[in-house]
Amino acid sequence: MALIVHKYGGTSMGSTERIRNVAKRVAKWARAGHQMVVVPSAMSGETNRLLGLAKELAPPKQSDAYLRELDMLASTGEQVSVGLLSIALQAEGLEAVSYAGWQVPILTNSAYTKARIESIDDARVRKDLAAGKVVVITGFQGIDDDGHITTLGRGGSDTSAVAVAAALKAAECLIYTDVDGVYTTDPRVVPEARRLHTVSFEEMLEMASMGSKVLQIRSVEFAGKYRVPLRVLSSFTPWDIPIDEEARSGTLITFEEDEQMEQAVVSGIAFNRDEAKVSILGVPDKPGIAYNILGAVAEANIEVDVIIQNISKDGKTDFSFTVHRNDYARTVDLLKSKVAPALGTDRIEGDTRICKVSIVGIGMRSHVGIAAKMFRALSEEGINIQMISTSEIKTSVVIDEKYMELAVRALHRAFDLDQGGAAK
Amino acid sequence: MALIVHKYGGTSMGSTERIRNVAKRVAKWARAGHQMVVVPSAMSGETNRLLGLAKELAPPKQSDAYLRELDMLASTGEQVSVGLLSIALQAEGLEAVSYAGWQVPILTNSAYTKARIESIDDARVRKDLAAGKVVVITGFQGIDDDGHITTLGRGGSDTSAVAVAAALKAAECLIYTDVDGVYTTDPRVVPEARRLHTVSFEEMLEMASMGSKVLQIRSVEFAGKYRVPLRVLSSFTPWDIPIDEEARSGTLITFEEDEQMEQAVVSGIAFNRDEAKVSILGVPDKPGIAYNILGAVAEANIEVDVIIQNISKDGKTDFSFTVHRNDYARTVDLLKSKVAPALGTDRIEGDTRICKVSIVGIGMRSHVGIAAKMFRALSEEGINIQMISTSEIKTSVVIDEKYMELAVRALHRAFDLDQGGAAK
Repeated sequence: MALIVHKYGGTSMGSTERIRNVAKRVAKWARAGHQMVVVPSAMSGETNRLLGLAKELAPPKQSDAYLRELDMLASTGEQVSVGLLSIALQAEGLEAVSYAGWQVPILTNSAYTKARIESIDDARVRKDLAAGKVVVITGFQGIDDDGHITTLGRGGSDTSAVAVAAALKAAECLIYTDVDGVYTTDPRVVPEARRLHTVSFEEMLEMASMGSKVLQIRSVEFAGKYRVPLRVLSSFTPWDIPIDEEARSGTLITFEEDEQMEQAVVSGIAFNRDEAKVSILGVPDKPGIAYNILGAVAEANIEVDVIIQNISKDGKTDFSFTVHRNDYARTVDLLKSKVAPALGTDRIEGDTRICKVSIVGIGMRSHVGIAAKMFRALSEEGINIQMISTSEIKTSVVIDEKYMELAVRALHRAFDLDQGGAAK
Repeated sequence: MALIVHKYGGTSMGSTERIRNVAKRVAKWARAGHQMVVVPSAMSGETNRLLGLAKELAPPKQSDAYLRELDMLASTGEQVSVGLLSIALQAEGLEAVSYAGWQVPILTNSAYTKARIESIDDARVRKDLAAGKVVVITGFQGIDDDGHITTLGRGGSDTSAVAVAAALKAAECLIYTDVDGVYTTDPRVVPEARRLHTVSFEEMLEMASMGSKVLQIRSVEFAGKYRVPLRVLSSFTPWDIPIDEEARSGTLITFEEDEQMEQAVVSGIAFNRDEAKVSILGVPDKPGIAYNILGAVAEANIEVDVIIQNISKDGKTDFSFTVHRNDYARTVDLLKSKVAPALGTDRIEGDTRICKVSIVGIGMRSHVGIAAKMFRALSEEGINIQMISTSEIKTSVVIDEKYMELAVRALHRAFDLDQGGAAK
């Protein structure tokens, strides 16, 4: 008997047949005595269809007025979902009512297409829950102070669900998705990858930022900020499995320090090949170099990830960093045309065929020698490390992308993450 | 330089290419110095698609809660349209902003799927117009006092446009549709039918109620109540025809008494075959008979159109009326099982193969012998009249449906409505 928030992704809402299954699953939870709030995404493909229509008509310049209309348009996808899901719940014999973000209301700032939630009024929802209704709320959207519809950006429904759970102080927020939890690494790369029963909020954050697509990173940040117990689980189990079994399935994202104490040193291996490396060589080694280079890059709205400055030699140094692969050409142009001449060098090098592989684990805080173990495992496979970056619970290396799978498998084995390895 | 409201139907909004044409047409009006408000319908087929999904999931009983969700769902069709049209207007270089009904707000009562507009707040729209923006408002929908989305029922976008025009005291409301105006009768039945340059509000109301599908009847009632000059015109003329020519095209629905003075006696011939006739024979002729019969029919929510009570003979009378053909079987059942036994008769007759043909004209008020001329024209064609019903500006007859086209053509000719006949 608790207040529970369910979130269902676009695939789970992809047809009337699937919506009926979602309704049956929610009904099972409601009949077990829980107060239920459900946040569904738009039916799969719908948001792309709508934005595709907009693109055909779009003005040459993307003004704020244009982005406002995109939100007006895109927000309808979730409104369709809440209407259909409420109808399906009513067909299951439940009382159900749907609300668009503006009806709750979910207040956001005015940054159209990438708004941030500022507050949620829980009065209306609580009243319905007290009256025994299932409340279905649109994901992905809200309303700003002037009454304009806003959306939260791609994957925003995860954030909506967590924010609603936080506002209602829900016992748990269950994110139903097309994977059955968070894995030690991508099972397509390492078939022996294991599902984690629990993962700490900080580890989840690092994995999400490393391209593990299970949860939108902002929803994890939100869960961390408001300490919302979050569970990732599969929407493809039969809807009528016992509720106790379902409630223990998937991966729970925890905030309890004592739970984390028992965790393995390394929880997972993350990787991505979305980045490219850029180096500027023979730079005079004097104060302000990093700012001279990265200031110009930031001004061009290019996000930088790993940053390395080599030790100086003969008063010169080499400076390297990674950017998203889509920004690579623009970054090289910028360095060549503006930055390098001012620094008295013309030696720009770059490489798009790289990848980043990271070990993530909250246990790294209290263990020494973890990074060394990582480097040895890679060395034993003959993999050369191009860049290294460390944080409290993560160590990342940049390597040639052709070694990516090899590196991930080697690290997964080295840290005992394979099936049958150290249980968590 | 005036405030003008344009309304575009679903066919005009049916593709991005067509939406672009609507935007170009509106831009032409805006550039001519007019303050423009546009009310588009959902893209053709969209409302049916959404309601089709709902039907697949619908609960067995259609509660108010279910109808609420239908409105939540169906209202998204128009929201998509206003977003896309605003974007297309921006691409034309105009400032444009869209509002859903709840944002204006357009306040309605809470009768989901068939709500009625109660008031429109014009402050927000006026502010945007004053700032030089084109304002695009969703048709078909509003919001009730409790913040729930409501829709106005099929064709409701016409009513929305007229209501918005009334609230803003617009100079004219132009309804762009797939016909180029109001005709003396359906040109598919009478190829010689002429387009009327003007038609009075009362005549339009009678024609709409007779199944002439050009305008939703409630929008005509609304226009009459608030004296909104209304013009029906084609959305298929090229968008770049001269604005003066476009402004004079179609059919203007007028409210000026002196304009009506010049009109022809009969403006048009309306007809429909949606009705069926029911008779209950040998009823004792005493007070309360009409109520005994029609009270029971009304209680069953069956709408009655033409009603005839014959003169009494031997203390008995015959009572006939027409209902929608869909209600025919239910009506006969009701009369047989409940009404007839109480009246001491079992003689129920009915006929679904009938049609109703009407002559409509404001001039009938001040001319005598119009009905007689109608009956003679029908008699000359050997058409038997089964029922007659008259109002101030309309005379209707119920005849065998196989004579419908013949009757319409004969009346069209008899009242000089053919091309080249009396101009209006």
